[in-house]
Amino acid sequence: MALRVALGQINAVVGDIKGNIAKMREFYVRALEQQVELLIFPEMCVCGYPPEDLLHKEQFLEENKNAVESFAIDCPEMTVIVGFAEIATDGCYNSLAVLGDGGVQHIYHKNNLPNYGVFDEQRYFLAGTTPYVIDIKGISMALTICEDIWHLEAAAKLFEDSFHKDLIVNISASPFHVGKIGLRQEVFEQCTKHFSCGLAYSNLVGGQDELVFDGRSVFVDADGKTVCHAKEFAEDMPVVDIEKIDGRLKYTNVQADDINEHYDAIAEVYNALVLGTRDYVRKNGFKEVLIGLSGGIDSSLTAAIAVEALGAENVVGVTMPTRFNSPETISDAGRSAKLLGMKFHTIGIADTLAQFSKMLSGMDGWDENGLAYENLQARIRGTILMSMSNQFGYMVLTTGNKSEVAVGYSTLYGDTAGGFAVIKDVPKTLVYKLSRYINELKGREVIPVSVIERVPSAELRPDQKDSDSLPDYEVLDAILKGYVEDDVSPQKLIEDGLDKETVERIVRLVDLNEYKRRQSPPGVRITPKAFGKDRRMPITNKYK
Amino acid sequence: MALRVALGQINAVVGDIKGNIAKMREFYVRALEQQVELLIFPEMCVCGYPPEDLLHKEQFLEENKNAVESFAIDCPEMTVIVGFAEIATDGCYNSLAVLGDGGVQHIYHKNNLPNYGVFDEQRYFLAGTTPYVIDIKGISMALTICEDIWHLEAAAKLFEDSFHKDLIVNISASPFHVGKIGLRQEVFEQCTKHFSCGLAYSNLVGGQDELVFDGRSVFVDADGKTVCHAKEFAEDMPVVDIEKIDGRLKYTNVQADDINEHYDAIAEVYNALVLGTRDYVRKNGFKEVLIGLSGGIDSSLTAAIAVEALGAENVVGVTMPTRFNSPETISDAGRSAKLLGMKFHTIGIADTLAQFSKMLSGMDGWDENGLAYENLQARIRGTILMSMSNQFGYMVLTTGNKSEVAVGYSTLYGDTAGGFAVIKDVPKTLVYKLSRYINELKGREVIPVSVIERVPSAELRPDQKDSDSLPDYEVLDAILKGYVEDDVSPQKLIEDGLDKETVERIVRLVDLNEYKRRQSPPGVRITPKAFGKDRRMPITNKYK
Repeated sequence: MALRVALGQINAVVGDIKGNIAKMREFYVRALEQQVELLIFPEMCVCGYPPEDLLHKEQFLEENKNAVESFAIDCPEMTVIVGFAEIATDGCYNSLAVLGDGGVQHIYHKNNLPNYGVFDEQRYFLAGTTPYVIDIKGISMALTICEDIWHLEAAAKLFEDSFHKDLIVNISASPFHVGKIGLRQEVFEQCTKHFSCGLAYSNLVGGQDELVFDGRSVFVDADGKTVCHAKEFAEDMPVVDIEKIDGRLKYTNVQADDINEHYDAIAEVYNALVLGTRDYVRKNGFKEVLIGLSGGIDSSLTAAIAVEALGAENVVGVTMPTRFNSPETISDAGRSAKLLGMKFHTIGIADTLAQFSKMLSGMDGWDENGLAYENLQARIRGTILMSMSNQFGYMVLTTGNKSEVAVGYSTLYGDTAGGFAVIKDVPKTLVYKLSRYINELKGREVIPVSVIERVPSAELRPDQKDSDSLPDYEVLDAILKGYVEDDVSPQKLIEDGLDKETVERIVRLVDLNEYKRRQSPPGVRITPKAFGKDRRMPITNKYK
Repeated sequence: MALRVALGQINAVVGDIKGNIAKMREFYVRALEQQVELLIFPEMCVCGYPPEDLLHKEQFLEENKNAVESFAIDCPEMTVIVGFAEIATDGCYNSLAVLGDGGVQHIYHKNNLPNYGVFDEQRYFLAGTTPYVIDIKGISMALTICEDIWHLEAAAKLFEDSFHKDLIVNISASPFHVGKIGLRQEVFEQCTKHFSCGLAYSNLVGGQDELVFDGRSVFVDADGKTVCHAKEFAEDMPVVDIEKIDGRLKYTNVQADDINEHYDAIAEVYNALVLGTRDYVRKNGFKEVLIGLSGGIDSSLTAAIAVEALGAENVVGVTMPTRFNSPETISDAGRSAKLLGMKFHTIGIADTLAQFSKMLSGMDGWDENGLAYENLQARIRGTILMSMSNQFGYMVLTTGNKSEVAVGYSTLYGDTAGGFAVIKDVPKTLVYKLSRYINELKGREVIPVSVIERVPSAELRPDQKDSDSLPDYEVLDAILKGYVEDDVSPQKLIEDGLDKETVERIVRLVDLNEYKRRQSPPGVRITPKAFGKDRRMPITNKYK
């Protein structure tokens, strides 16, 4: 007498309670067709995650509650587990509801509220204090939400082995970064082995501002082995039959795609960037995007990701050359667009630059050979992009990579101007790897090889090269990984063999440019620490 | 045998451990001259508050500890209380150290960690669990940090009356908003009356990014009555003698300025804006600021605040007219500058606008009568300001008020371009009150009366008025106060008598313009909820 269980890995939209419920209802209907008896949706699937300060709106919380209650009425023919924000007299809970027979049968409150990195759950939620176990067809299930199973000691304390459990049900909204899947698999293994029980893990999928939820929901057996799992970076609904035989769970009749569990870091970053970009653009109501194509690798990569995310017909490129741009880069900008099949415009900015500079030369001390003049070029380009955005309804995608963003190698309101910064968390060394990967994946030149191989330059003055102001990108990225992602002190980096003068200069640039990052658009987080919610540095900061 | 106690209300800088310690040492020397026996500095005075993710740097925490230890050696001749971030094996504490006889004598860990509004203390700190009481000259003192006394029930639980106390010492980093002083006074009264003891409250002063700490450190007696207090918005060191007579504390020999306790809301907002602007500019290493003067009230007010904060010699104005600007506003821009005694430039943008538009008209569909053309004017101005900033080292101050910021009545990278947004938390109705207040305060016309009385307009197209797109500012600000500051639902605002169509339109504008606010510079927080750390809304948000 097996129990048929499905994981409803949906792409929920923050605040779109109606839309999310409609999608869950679709999954319910499909599950019904497959005779599913228990359908498990992810954490906060009703309201999307993270809803942030929407949780301070009483009406929002009321609507959550009402939506869960109506959904229970609409889905009476199986047991359904959903996650939602539950209003309480003195705040709210991050809750899991068990729906069945047309009503809400049980509610569990998340115990362990993460308040680090990108998470602010103690800002919003009251912590639950009691475990919850339900029994369906003789299988006892401990109900948990995300972080509840991440700390074995706390989980053990919560369960206190005061009840028998065959299966841990965990609903999650666990965001992606490179390496996260490995961390999760460790947690799953540790948890299932420790409690000698299976795991049904239902994770959210989709992009929400800087976060991308990667899905990869999974059934795990009591030995920590994966039974089957859902797609990565896409909606999915794996189904299995679970039966208890001689006190142990047996999984049969697995209905899931066969997916390679050995995730490739470059491939998953690419998929995360594509999904994150698609969801940001679409969920914010935009159809077409606009990209300033310089003929360099950053904008070519950004365009390739945008075309994959939105279709070539929705991606517009524009190149805006001056006399500082080489004929090769100008031609490569066009070639990038052509290889991607996207629309392409050329707007020379020489006359406007000349007029602008003439106007400014009315001021004593205006200098056409300085940084201000370089920035002026970038700001004229930013203004063109935003003018086209205003006139034609495009969302502008910016093209700066993480290495540039870190050291402020960019012009505020120039190349940082736009709605979404696709590769802002991709270090330059990874930009190269991704570009080569895409060409391989597509089996043809998508990003021109000449672009990949050219010595990088901002082309804002004659014969400029990135290496005039910055160390080699391998060195730069090593310093940034240590200082930014791992909070290693400059002293330690120097002791570890990095050049003292270089480390000190780069660290200083990172610190000084916090103000630029604070005014830059969001972009997809792909590392354990992005320049976003997970790195909250003061602007006014004299620490050296 | 009285005990002479001083409150060391210093302006600490985040990250500037050396500088802060040097300043504390100066206060110590002054206190020594006055025969002070106990000197109490504010919360986190060693490292500044809030240090945010600096607290994730082990070296930063180590330097905190070392600084406290050396300071103890340097200041052996009285008891000194300091606040600092204390490294622990599994995180860090928000700590209070009692220094005396050249060493650290006691350490107390903050128990109650605020994690709401602008506070994220549970992200950073472990919570202490025990109270601490010290005895000096027969006066027993319970040591507390900020939030510890804000919740009477928790405070009562912490103290559990397990020890006798004559005085509660509270070191704070309590940020300003209008009305905060009243809340604090309630807390002080409640607390002193409940525990039948006095209070010595030492609060930080100074601007840190969006926050302004207002000081107003205070001694309170057991009846909740103020004995004396320190200046608002300035460094200060009030001194009193405290003696225990018949079991009750007696305060004598008060050395503090006589300050009116009935704070005027307009005056304190003005002072907060001046201090917040001065500290942001100076602590970030800038000398001069640049302001685009339109001849309107927002930029005139911003200039007046900047002149008060930095001196007229450090404030530069530039007006950048087009044919859409009336002769009156152009002349008022100059008049504003003249009344304030600041430098002033005029840069007409007509030719550059024409050239820019000519360049863009190469694109099918470019329209000189639309919103894109209006935004283009603002972006040309933003680019001029930033070019001057780059060339001459000015920090650009933006001039948008809270009402505009709320509904997105601004051009991203245009009038939002700059380093600090002085009045971003000042609603338009308060902009008028502040302007009149400044003229009164100075006893002359500082902000031209013609500017105050003119019908507001962005002057980006012929005969434009703010009221073409927005309701009257009284109505707008009432809606915004309800929806933004108090999280009141649109339904409730309508039930309360506001016009349905207007409420719905404004609420929609507020929601839609989150992306603009996310890319805007910080500015002084003066209300209980600013568009800053205390309002964290998702950009991708379909909640209606």
